[in-house]
Amino acid sequence: MPSDKPLAQRLLDGDRRALARAISLVEDDDPAGWELVREVYPHTGRAAVVGVTGAPGAGKSTLIGKVVANRRAAGRSVAVLSIDPSSPFTHGALLGDRIRLTDHFLDPGVFIRSMANRGALGGLSEASLQAALLMDAAGRDDVLLETVGVGQAEIDIIDHADTVVLVLMPGGGDSVQALKAGIMEIPDIIVVNKADHPMTQTMVREIRGVLSLAPQGDWKVPIVQTEATEGTGVEQLVEQLLTHRAHIEEQGTLAERRRNNLRNEVIALATTKLRRSLEARVCSDPAFEGLIDDVVARRLDPASAAHALLDDTRS
Amino acid sequence: MPSDKPLAQRLLDGDRRALARAISLVEDDDPAGWELVREVYPHTGRAAVVGVTGAPGAGKSTLIGKVVANRRAAGRSVAVLSIDPSSPFTHGALLGDRIRLTDHFLDPGVFIRSMANRGALGGLSEASLQAALLMDAAGRDDVLLETVGVGQAEIDIIDHADTVVLVLMPGGGDSVQALKAGIMEIPDIIVVNKADHPMTQTMVREIRGVLSLAPQGDWKVPIVQTEATEGTGVEQLVEQLLTHRAHIEEQGTLAERRRNNLRNEVIALATTKLRRSLEARVCSDPAFEGLIDDVVARRLDPASAAHALLDDTRS
Repeated sequence: MPSDKPLAQRLLDGDRRALARAISLVEDDDPAGWELVREVYPHTGRAAVVGVTGAPGAGKSTLIGKVVANRRAAGRSVAVLSIDPSSPFTHGALLGDRIRLTDHFLDPGVFIRSMANRGALGGLSEASLQAALLMDAAGRDDVLLETVGVGQAEIDIIDHADTVVLVLMPGGGDSVQALKAGIMEIPDIIVVNKADHPMTQTMVREIRGVLSLAPQGDWKVPIVQTEATEGTGVEQLVEQLLTHRAHIEEQGTLAERRRNNLRNEVIALATTKLRRSLEARVCSDPAFEGLIDDVVARRLDPASAAHALLDDTRS
Repeated sequence: MPSDKPLAQRLLDGDRRALARAISLVEDDDPAGWELVREVYPHTGRAAVVGVTGAPGAGKSTLIGKVVANRRAAGRSVAVLSIDPSSPFTHGALLGDRIRLTDHFLDPGVFIRSMANRGALGGLSEASLQAALLMDAAGRDDVLLETVGVGQAEIDIIDHADTVVLVLMPGGGDSVQALKAGIMEIPDIIVVNKADHPMTQTMVREIRGVLSLAPQGDWKVPIVQTEATEGTGVEQLVEQLLTHRAHIEEQGTLAERRRNNLRNEVIALATTKLRRSLEARVCSDPAFEGLIDDVVARRLDPASAAHALLDDTRS
């Protein structure tokens, strides 16, 4: 039975349906969604936000499912946001993984949501951040953000996390190479999943080597071996999550990290807004195709065309 | 002995030192560099531009070295641009690979350049595209763009290529998973390098499976097995490069692809320019930190802060 209370109030009361509705609004880029985030924002900042990244197939979803069970047993409420940036043609390939989280579908203490809407304007990362804030405002103790990363230098959504976990699997040498080459940022915790694989110890040694070359902060990145399907190693992972959180709280780096994250987020949101208005102009302006004709005919170079486009947009 | 001719003219004459100087100008974001690209742009569009991407350690540089030798033997002049987006702390880790191209250092028909300058403003991809245009204008028949990619949906520099080659290695399962999940775009040619590895055939079968699920265009993506260190399979790769080029020329898709690439490039350049001016404002404006203080204190949400920032920037 729908309540007469406004959506924001129901969300703050922890109503699951209100949370689901609110996330749909931001996913659809409905102005009411942005307004809602604005309204509930003062109530955010309480959740422990953990980002989980890694190659497709590394077992992130299964692992998250086990972590969720562990946190629930400890009496905490949990929200999981799975972000799926896969291309339209395989749509659903990654979302199939989400089924692994269905164990928790009947538990009101667990809220699970997938986002795959790339949209014409590429607002997935924007919408994900807003959704994470909504989960936080709805009073979830733990917010887990799952996203696919195979070596990207920046994964926007991970920027929102207090703790970043990278999940690797034996045989997934590309991610270790990317870590080694500095293409991928060093996370806070590294998990080697599918640790029953014969190549596990080789991989662990290789990762240790990479970490020994990385600049030493005051946090020593732990390597946790798990077999997510069996639940093996999940307790050790949770322990490391708690240790990392205690560490950043003690050191005051949590506040610092959040300030940096929020700063980047504001700039990213502003840049997206600028790009959107640029793209909207381009789509509606027949003169732009004429500009491209000139570039294609090699009469006008791309940088000059970009200048012309901006001058035109501003006027 | 430096000539008295202007830089643009020497570049168009194919002078190696003029090309090197010109690239340094765009890398340093010197206005003279942009001016130069503007000037020589009418002479671009003749080179066959091939993008080579893949995880670090897949053997891209060695393979490119062999392709260069093959093209030189066929009487073509070649330029190689290696783009290294690795993080500051491993700086040089990838550039070490470049040493594998030194066989060609004494051949004036081969021009090799690395770019790793991330810069404060993140202009690497912009500068790379300008550098590729300069190589083209300098009359190089083949321009090879080497970049590290481990599953990024968009790798800007690759957008500039007429033909995209993805180099995989057995054991690098993460890239195949990324391809499968649609996180990584299907390239024009797939190379499985280090094909002496026992896992090669398994990987080839897996890739065939992925390709069979991808939407069928009029080009059937070939899988070439190479052992770059031995030169095995390099001829087959070159043959596929030529076949692909003939194919896109015949089908008229080369013109279409270049139009799309140039279109994206103009929008990307314009967006970068907007972001830069935004960041410059942010750095010089003490009010911005006050805005972030409000966001951190949860008095103002990130989206509203972004709005405020833009309004402030415009006024």
